[in-house]
Amino acid sequence: MSSTFGRLFRAITFGESHCKAVGVVVDGCPPKMALSESDVQIQLDRRRPGQSKLTTDRDEADRVILLFGVDSRMTLGTPVAMMVHNKDQRPGDYGEMAFVPRPSHADYTYQMKYGIRASSGGGRSSARETIGRVAAGAIAEKFLRDVYGVEIVAWVSGVGETSAPDPDESAVTRAMVDDSPVRCPDAGSAAAMSDEILAAREASDSVGGVVSCICRNAPVGLGEPVFDKLEAALAQAMLSIPATKGFEIGSGFAGARMRGSAHNDPFVRKGGRLGTRTNFSGGVQGGISNGEPIRFRVAFKPPATIGQAQSTADFEGNETTLAAKGRHDPCVVPRAVPIVEAMAALVLADMALIQKTRQA
Amino acid sequence: MSSTFGRLFRAITFGESHCKAVGVVVDGCPPKMALSESDVQIQLDRRRPGQSKLTTDRDEADRVILLFGVDSRMTLGTPVAMMVHNKDQRPGDYGEMAFVPRPSHADYTYQMKYGIRASSGGGRSSARETIGRVAAGAIAEKFLRDVYGVEIVAWVSGVGETSAPDPDESAVTRAMVDDSPVRCPDAGSAAAMSDEILAAREASDSVGGVVSCICRNAPVGLGEPVFDKLEAALAQAMLSIPATKGFEIGSGFAGARMRGSAHNDPFVRKGGRLGTRTNFSGGVQGGISNGEPIRFRVAFKPPATIGQAQSTADFEGNETTLAAKGRHDPCVVPRAVPIVEAMAALVLADMALIQKTRQA
Amino acid sequence: MSSTFGRLFRAITFGESHCKAVGVVVDGCPPKMALSESDVQIQLDRRRPGQSKLTTDRDEADRVILLFGVDSRMTLGTPVAMMVHNKDQRPGDYGEMAFVPRPSHADYTYQMKYGIRASSGGGRSSARETIGRVAAGAIAEKFLRDVYGVEIVAWVSGVGETSAPDPDESAVTRAMVDDSPVRCPDAGSAAAMSDEILAAREASDSVGGVVSCICRNAPVGLGEPVFDKLEAALAQAMLSIPATKGFEIGSGFAGARMRGSAHNDPFVRKGGRLGTRTNFSGGVQGGISNGEPIRFRVAFKPPATIGQAQSTADFEGNETTLAAKGRHDPCVVPRAVPIVEAMAALVLADMALIQKTRQA
Amino acid sequence: MSSTFGRLFRAITFGESHCKAVGVVVDGCPPKMALSESDVQIQLDRRRPGQSKLTTDRDEADRVILLFGVDSRMTLGTPVAMMVHNKDQRPGDYGEMAFVPRPSHADYTYQMKYGIRASSGGGRSSARETIGRVAAGAIAEKFLRDVYGVEIVAWVSGVGETSAPDPDESAVTRAMVDDSPVRCPDAGSAAAMSDEILAAREASDSVGGVVSCICRNAPVGLGEPVFDKLEAALAQAMLSIPATKGFEIGSGFAGARMRGSAHNDPFVRKGGRLGTRTNFSGGVQGGISNGEPIRFRVAFKPPATIGQAQSTADFEGNETTLAAKGRHDPCVVPRAVPIVEAMAALVLADMALIQKTRQA
Repeated sequence: MSSTFGRLFRAITFGESHCKAVGVVVDGCPPKMALSESDVQIQLDRRRPGQSKLTTDRDEADRVILLFGVDSRMTLGTPVAMMVHNKDQRPGDYGEMAFVPRPSHADYTYQMKYGIRASSGGGRSSARETIGRVAAGAIAEKFLRDVYGVEIVAWVSGVGETSAPDPDESAVTRAMVDDSPVRCPDAGSAAAMSDEILAAREASDSVGGVVSCICRNAPVGLGEPVFDKLEAALAQAMLSIPATKGFEIGSGFAGARMRGSAHNDPFVRKGGRLGTRTNFSGGVQGGISNGEPIRFRVAFKPPATIGQAQSTADFEGNETTLAAKGRHDPCVVPRAVPIVEAMAALVLADMALIQKTRQA
Repeated sequence: MSSTFGRLFRAITFGESHCKAVGVVVDGCPPKMALSESDVQIQLDRRRPGQSKLTTDRDEADRVILLFGVDSRMTLGTPVAMMVHNKDQRPGDYGEMAFVPRPSHADYTYQMKYGIRASSGGGRSSARETIGRVAAGAIAEKFLRDVYGVEIVAWVSGVGETSAPDPDESAVTRAMVDDSPVRCPDAGSAAAMSDEILAAREASDSVGGVVSCICRNAPVGLGEPVFDKLEAALAQAMLSIPATKGFEIGSGFAGARMRGSAHNDPFVRKGGRLGTRTNFSGGVQGGISNGEPIRFRVAFKPPATIGQAQSTADFEGNETTLAAKGRHDPCVVPRAVPIVEAMAALVLADMALIQKTRQA
Repeated sequence: MSSTFGRLFRAITFGESHCKAVGVVVDGCPPKMALSESDVQIQLDRRRPGQSKLTTDRDEADRVILLFGVDSRMTLGTPVAMMVHNKDQRPGDYGEMAFVPRPSHADYTYQMKYGIRASSGGGRSSARETIGRVAAGAIAEKFLRDVYGVEIVAWVSGVGETSAPDPDESAVTRAMVDDSPVRCPDAGSAAAMSDEILAAREASDSVGGVVSCICRNAPVGLGEPVFDKLEAALAQAMLSIPATKGFEIGSGFAGARMRGSAHNDPFVRKGGRLGTRTNFSGGVQGGISNGEPIRFRVAFKPPATIGQAQSTADFEGNETTLAAKGRHDPCVVPRAVPIVEAMAALVLADMALIQKTRQA
Repeated sequence: MSSTFGRLFRAITFGESHCKAVGVVVDGCPPKMALSESDVQIQLDRRRPGQSKLTTDRDEADRVILLFGVDSRMTLGTPVAMMVHNKDQRPGDYGEMAFVPRPSHADYTYQMKYGIRASSGGGRSSARETIGRVAAGAIAEKFLRDVYGVEIVAWVSGVGETSAPDPDESAVTRAMVDDSPVRCPDAGSAAAMSDEILAAREASDSVGGVVSCICRNAPVGLGEPVFDKLEAALAQAMLSIPATKGFEIGSGFAGARMRGSAHNDPFVRKGGRLGTRTNFSGGVQGGISNGEPIRFRVAFKPPATIGQAQSTADFEGNETTLAAKGRHDPCVVPRAVPIVEAMAALVLADMALIQKTRQA
């Protein structure tokens, strides 16, 4: 079950880094939705390696192929499958890692869990698995946009010691985000972040970061009490992305330091509906969307695979030194932006379908 | 489905604040496990209202009744059900709230989601729902303790502006935690936290906080790639607790500011197994437990229901002022400690059962 | 998971024969549906023991109590729970069975599966578990009737060697069915069936039977390809009822003897829609309802617990003789009629909610 | 969710008749199991078209390709995917059917359910979908055979008016079954069945049939009360196969005509375990396997697509005549044998994994 996400709008990702292809089956997408490969490719292009000097220089085109579930550019209501070929397989780069588990990587735990693991690459723990997420998320997002006008925009709000000021969350767009290769809409912060990443790369090191995300125009009523609260589903979705260490919605950890009188979001009339003056809740009350923008942040650790030599132990427990070869991202957050958007879209689409069951 | 948590070790909570009882059905608990009401009552006593001046002074005994699934103090393998009667129903206290949705509470979103809501109390959004979680968690915890020796200890690490230093995570116990009513094992911090809570109560206000948790002796191999990573399941579990705003595992948001060379946890031989020198990973690598303590933190916002008058709008959008009556907690974190432990236990028990399917 | 039925419209039954109560939690019932205990009681009265000389003479009133999820006779959209107290607990009747597993009963398999079993009664295998099904089904049925005008009518079409001719499936009602205690709408067959049952009782024996069911006015489009076809879901539902041995839809096993030219149901215009001239399909094509009546049959074996002495072996494998004490049904089909209706309603309600997700 | 079968041992089939490929993802297969393509191909060869004059003469090799999840012929514990290319796509054959829904086929219901359908072929209702089932089932079966010694053998026991006598269920093998192209181990019946099928083909007609199945050496304890009883899971599995109309286990519908004293299976000592003298239960008591052979039968209707002209209506309701072109099976049961075996294996493997969670 662990490769399946969602209840009614379901994504089942498949494939591994060093096999022929990765992809996804989307089960539950409503029928008669216009869909073509370009709807998906646009987000895959934002995820692909080799986009800029800030990412790995492995250059992979990652062209999506729509396998079935779509006829004459319309969804059939039956499962949609998409595949991306793995172009640049370099099993040779991983030779040493057969004996030495990479610190803070999945090598050791996969071996212990299954008693066996893929002989090269990270198997299912590979970041290439996220291609399937991004492809499925693009479909979910199209559904949300077509039906509800939902807009989902994520951006890099932190890299290492650099934190960017919040943009105007009612106005920030993907175009603004993509203005800098680091995907931070604040130009000054973007430059500093870029410097941090290049410095880490220079040092054969890596650096962590934070991705913020806003979902505008999500309808009121998404999220299921008790255990499938919207923030709980988002938290699961985000912490399922490789390299994530934290999630906060609305006020988040800062909210834990506040008093209720300051934190409560007073209701006000907004056009024909009830809105809130502030949005410390992050668009969610009692686990259910309230019509305000859904705001959350995701912490990413620095990538585990670094060129710098590290003292560690091999599988036998013998001390050794490991210096990763291969071409790895010094920082994942620029490429994580479309992944965060995709997972947010998958959560909202699933919750929107569930909520439809309550309509007259 | 939203009242069900888990896949193999399942908790289905039931009941509402202002009905006769709340409770839980636990489906999937292994057979032939010794179990009696006292195993469950001990954690319910730590959750119940009226424990100290720091909590609501509603005094509810919350005695658990084991309904079935246990015979001669042994589990049968069939569902176990437990119930707690609601002693202190005061629907009258909520009169005004029928017309004015409480800011940052579930009143508005439940009404919008369902077009109807419970005429008094918070319905399923009530904190009394967590009684079922704590009861189910106590069973999960007993299973984990009996079979694997797992120890789960949560404590209050922050209240408002006060943050406590980390205790020795290899040694902290529930007894140390319960030494202060605020449930912070650091005596100095506990006193400051207690002052913050009392000051908030004095001001008819509320204050947020942070609960930290450690799970020791969890076996290696728990957590399912891709979407059911251990940290993803924990994140969902924690963000499903009312009033939570954030979750971080291991280094968390602080890890996003680090470099890989500092953040990576080098492997070292620990007795007969491979361990790590540091634990920025928080006991999880690639979504799978690595045998190190599982460490995470949960942010709780200040309770929404406060006695202070707040400017807000009624359901019609008319400006009004709301001052909650009734006896509400000025800060939830002292009572949230056993809830966090319960949800952690439910996640680990479920993952442990799934992992059993891989054993020869 | 095994006590949960359904995906969106979910029933979770609980309780055992010899504990205080049995019942059900219904999760996913749409909000704002009028509901009171009498909507449920009417079907429980058709299921209860002691209705006639054809059933066990244990007299249990089986009064349903609505615990929560309903406010001012309207569903809240949150889980609905219902409970029936166990009035007539007679653990003493089962003494001998502690050592001798009843042939063709669950005693042996529960013991082997769990290594333990309830010390009296059948635990979760008890027919009293079906009270929860009937209660949940009554809610599902009310939803289907209110929203779509669905009519579900089951009847006894076979007892032992007696088979009844098919009634007019477009017209048969529950009132016609209940005209005879055996619940066969054909008076002549009903008399013969009644004789067969009384003869079996006289002989301290039991006898099997068949329940037929028709669901009229089910909307077109229910059922999910590939694995959740409507007939697959119905088959699971029916074979989950205790004592069932077979299920057939439409032509069933007789259809296996036919040629396609005779079996195919030609399309014809029926009012504003497309219907079929014949209904060998049983209202389902390709796993999806086609708007014609859904017709199926369920085989029930003779009850395993009989008063007659049987040669068998005890748990140790020693030959012995067993003659059941207690008051057991000589034939289950008259009381199984509302259970079959309930399970059909649960399937259709679940499928109807899923299909709602495809509506514009 | 509807393309996913199973809970722990999961098969997710994908693809349509007239797209490039069909296949399956198997999630939950235990790690370190020897597996190669030939383990799967052997069953696909028994399912493929063009095997004999009794089946469609479309000749498709249906070579399976193992995409990932296996490394050096060992399962990794991560999802296994397999694919079969569609060689013989003939969309042109279906031209007329765009306007006239085939009687008793999925054309009409798919169109009504989704408001759209695949422009050629049957989309997901195509029998080619079952390739994924057979491939997944072959893996499940290998797991069951390697770990428990389970043997699953299905055969054709009825075609049209011909019914075969039961073989010796303790001895019948696939080799005996495959001795005749019709896959009936009784030579005389096989000849008669063959004649019936050829006569139907000659008449541009089709004919139904029955597949029987036996599962030997299944461990005691498989099946989950209440709703996931073994027979309920098998019934769902079998009724999810295209063209099925009925399922019966053990005595089945014949059992409904029996008395308890004759139907009950007395316990006897069998070697070191408790067995039963007769097996009217079909290897299942109280929804749980009892160690005796699991016996069941599945009814298949005559294929809907026939060459004979049929009077019917088009989508508009206008009377018309339809005579299917293309090369279709006159009878599905010879090729359904491996599909029934596959679905049985998927059910048993899933139940076996669930039962493992109860082992010490």
